[in-house]
Amino acid sequence: MSLIWFEGRLRPAAEVAISPSDRGFTLGDGLFETLCWRGGRILALEAHLARLLEGARVLEIPLPLLPEALAAALAATATGNGLSEAALRLTLSRGPGARGLAPPPDPRPTLLISAAPLPAPLPPARLITATFTRRNQHSPLARIKSLNYLDNILARQEAARAGADDALLLNTEGRLAEASASSLFALIGGELLTPPVADGALPGVRRAAWLAAGQAREQPLTPALLLRAEALVLTNSLGVRAVAALDGRDYRPLAVPESLSG
Amino acid sequence: MSLIWFEGRLRPAAEVAISPSDRGFTLGDGLFETLCWRGGRILALEAHLARLLEGARVLEIPLPLLPEALAAALAATATGNGLSEAALRLTLSRGPGARGLAPPPDPRPTLLISAAPLPAPLPPARLITATFTRRNQHSPLARIKSLNYLDNILARQEAARAGADDALLLNTEGRLAEASASSLFALIGGELLTPPVADGALPGVRRAAWLAAGQAREQPLTPALLLRAEALVLTNSLGVRAVAALDGRDYRPLAVPESLSG
Repeated sequence: MSLIWFEGRLRPAAEVAISPSDRGFTLGDGLFETLCWRGGRILALEAHLARLLEGARVLEIPLPLLPEALAAALAATATGNGLSEAALRLTLSRGPGARGLAPPPDPRPTLLISAAPLPAPLPPARLITATFTRRNQHSPLARIKSLNYLDNILARQEAARAGADDALLLNTEGRLAEASASSLFALIGGELLTPPVADGALPGVRRAAWLAAGQAREQPLTPALLLRAEALVLTNSLGVRAVAALDGRDYRPLAVPESLSG
Repeated sequence: MSLIWFEGRLRPAAEVAISPSDRGFTLGDGLFETLCWRGGRILALEAHLARLLEGARVLEIPLPLLPEALAAALAATATGNGLSEAALRLTLSRGPGARGLAPPPDPRPTLLISAAPLPAPLPPARLITATFTRRNQHSPLARIKSLNYLDNILARQEAARAGADDALLLNTEGRLAEASASSLFALIGGELLTPPVADGALPGVRRAAWLAAGQAREQPLTPALLLRAEALVLTNSLGVRAVAALDGRDYRPLAVPESLSG
């Protein structure tokens, strides 16, 4: 039986009940983070907490715990579940609310942390470019990790219908933004390029680390430019995935150095 | 104690527990409808069910009940709560799922119906035009009533910060789409005009009835055009609201004929 951190302590998952009036459930009104627990610590913890705090500021959701207490709760959830390596998910919603959109004047946010085994490394991905939906770079939601994930789910479903593993999302102006749950990098002219946040790329934590390390740089990417790419790579907080094909065109699966994949 | 229809029958609200792995809660992966119960019936029931079915088709969520059974459950929720007039809310999520975006191969959708007293008629609204976010008319989500409501919540919060009642959302090309929880109509040259669905207007049920009755027609609306409007009106399934002002400019609150407000 897995344990979930909820209302101040670890509880058996079966005892955790979300209220039917929780705005996370009724309106997607909240945030989440997916974090990698490995070697007795959370990778890039500060970057994840900073993104969560920025999201809470944008949505005006008060954080029910100080960052230090969040970090302790995350670690307790990993160890409490007996996992030496884990994918942790922290979900913060605005909590219960009355009918309608107006946020409650005195919100009681819901905070929940769950743990799952780290997913096994995946083979190089076969991708399509989603045609069914576009990512809205004009919304602040493109820059925070909110619970509004349906555009990305629609893209993933379109990929599944096409027999592909995942889909790249274009923004409303037709430039690349990201994959459904990963940042996109393209190796072009020996450089790793990734769409800028202004084009609708979620500011991914591993993406930021690669940029800060000078391993990659931001550059608007068009579908035409991807045709010239030597390789494509997908990254998220849990790992790095090579790309075998995009829209039926083969790419050379890039071997990512150990120093970047950890 | 209010009663909620959940897993096949009415239950006290306190006994209704949403799973922490419900994708409605974790990813906003679902749909809802708000319906008006009055005079022993649900207004425009068929139109609401048709929109729900269309949303379920787009999201590939199997409907756990036939439309006839949904109608019966909606009526039972209104009468079970002893309400002669009620705002009913039906929420359909994809149900529990494992970590990640991929929908479960064998989904068990969550269906929930709650009831609240009908809100009292509101005074004419003071509006702003949201600047913080834009509605994405390129996404199929603009045409279904999904649980991804954060852009609209952001607009409502911007209105609250400005001391206004509500906000109008522009689409990514700067044309009007809708208000945060209402369709928008502008009286221009004696005609009631409303943004087309292609511009990001949610296909509202009352909006569709007005269009079908020839009381209004679709027309792309720009902020410049609204400056020439004689009046503005907001509608949703629960009522019609006059508009007193937009961005500090006063409008004549339009008295809506009884035949259109019911």
